[in-house]
Amino acid sequence: MTRQSIIDSYQRIKPYIHNTPVLSSSYLNELAGCNMVFKCENFQKMGAFKMRGATNAILNIEKNKRQNGVVTHSSGNFAQAVALAAKTQEIPAYIVMPSNAPNVKKQAVQDYGGQVTICKPTIEERERHCAQIALETGATPLHPSNDLDVILGNSTSSYELLQDYPTLDVILTPVGGGGLLAGTALTVSNFGNDCHCLGAEPANVDDAYRSLASGKIEVNDNINTIADGLRTTLGDVNFPIIQQCVDRIIRVEESEIVHAMKLIWERMKLVVEPSSAVPFAAVLKEPDFFRNKQIGIIISGGNVDLTSLPF
Amino acid sequence: MTRQSIIDSYQRIKPYIHNTPVLSSSYLNELAGCNMVFKCENFQKMGAFKMRGATNAILNIEKNKRQNGVVTHSSGNFAQAVALAAKTQEIPAYIVMPSNAPNVKKQAVQDYGGQVTICKPTIEERERHCAQIALETGATPLHPSNDLDVILGNSTSSYELLQDYPTLDVILTPVGGGGLLAGTALTVSNFGNDCHCLGAEPANVDDAYRSLASGKIEVNDNINTIADGLRTTLGDVNFPIIQQCVDRIIRVEESEIVHAMKLIWERMKLVVEPSSAVPFAAVLKEPDFFRNKQIGIIISGGNVDLTSLPF
Repeated sequence: MTRQSIIDSYQRIKPYIHNTPVLSSSYLNELAGCNMVFKCENFQKMGAFKMRGATNAILNIEKNKRQNGVVTHSSGNFAQAVALAAKTQEIPAYIVMPSNAPNVKKQAVQDYGGQVTICKPTIEERERHCAQIALETGATPLHPSNDLDVILGNSTSSYELLQDYPTLDVILTPVGGGGLLAGTALTVSNFGNDCHCLGAEPANVDDAYRSLASGKIEVNDNINTIADGLRTTLGDVNFPIIQQCVDRIIRVEESEIVHAMKLIWERMKLVVEPSSAVPFAAVLKEPDFFRNKQIGIIISGGNVDLTSLPF
Repeated sequence: MTRQSIIDSYQRIKPYIHNTPVLSSSYLNELAGCNMVFKCENFQKMGAFKMRGATNAILNIEKNKRQNGVVTHSSGNFAQAVALAAKTQEIPAYIVMPSNAPNVKKQAVQDYGGQVTICKPTIEERERHCAQIALETGATPLHPSNDLDVILGNSTSSYELLQDYPTLDVILTPVGGGGLLAGTALTVSNFGNDCHCLGAEPANVDDAYRSLASGKIEVNDNINTIADGLRTTLGDVNFPIIQQCVDRIIRVEESEIVHAMKLIWERMKLVVEPSSAVPFAAVLKEPDFFRNKQIGIIISGGNVDLTSLPF
């Protein structure tokens, strides 16, 4: 059933998304001692894989209700993804953003036609504003990662990748809220040919690693990581999928993330956000584990402030 | 005859180069009011189109002589291209570099197996060292841009582009030494379907613009441009080709180059060197001229120092 859901999701969103290019680097392969292909979601519309999940979730709303629009709270890529996906479907997008979100992110959401509401930067205030807007407008609330339609939308990136590279041994994604990892895990377990799905996570916000170990959803004490897309925690929809279909989660240090990010910029000529470098950092960290393997890496996105790079 | 030479060059170097991806951005198209496709030579081996010319020139050396290797003087991409192309053909590469070349560039040449000789940073000293090495070793001297085999090698980038996009109205390249522009002009005049070839040049080093105007090779008074790949001047091999086959050369200011470069990084998620942004800057500068046209842009390379970006 999941297998068919992935295929259906792919067919549904296909007209509205890019089938993103897959790139590789012989230099990085030599350095890492394995064969890596990078699925470039930084080239996706609005610059991140989130466009897939947002589009799928919107298209799954019953048509009459869809016209009322969608509402979400996010200060990151999901806000832009919902704004652009809603614009594409010609419905309103209400985006609640915390007052401490960078102006450049608010502007990007507005450029995509999103209607921004600013609130106090607490999770309670964000959720309260979302609920109120949903009540007033009839808009459907969307969660960035803990929603099956979002997860299925995200699954289409690795689905495309496995169509081009059906013999991959491993597919690696970063893990933050868990929506990309869960979607990828569903694809790998349904379409992989002896392929394993792994997550990569900053050690500073290793809630997913600890959740897998303890068997219940753990939270982070702090969000001190450069990988700003990975500061969120798992939810009750994606965690069971991750528990069932993900082999392991590898943790990497901040310096390892910056090192991997710089290599991707320098050698692959790709603008990627720090979160996207976390899986490659994991490959570099465990050379014995990955040696000579065929590895797919999902480059999650490329939305980064060029004026504050870590190198 | 030229037509067949381009095809032969392409067949000759094809096993040793990447057929580079072509990318586009609906945002940038909307901004510029035209349809642009970017031929990404920043994804080429060693990160620049120069790999094409260097490979073709090396493969055109008669086999007995080829074994003695090649020699060139360069502090830029051509040095790395010759080093890597020679390594691929398993012959020695002797690279003369000025003492003021950045260490990172010397290191890159050595990483590709090039044998670096450091000399005083004058053109006379560079040429003297090249001649001496050629005499001592029997190595064949290679010029970065003023050599027909190099030009024909360079022509293969636009040849690939026109195969994928046969209806382009214009192909634009940056112009420095003139090797890429001349090669592209040969392709466009032989394989273009009512297609025009244009050059784009920093106004601060507008020797090519002035040469086309005066009918003789002009030089630059200074090399004050951020587009470090475009500081060189035309030669007697490529200038006649440019005279015959290039419609016009558009000049852009330094601030326009930086603006265009930042847009390519931010919106296309591509790491490109300043020289590569010059053609896009030209498109932005002359919206009326380019409006609604189908435009091919050669992204010349992506070798840039990430620690000293202009934004």
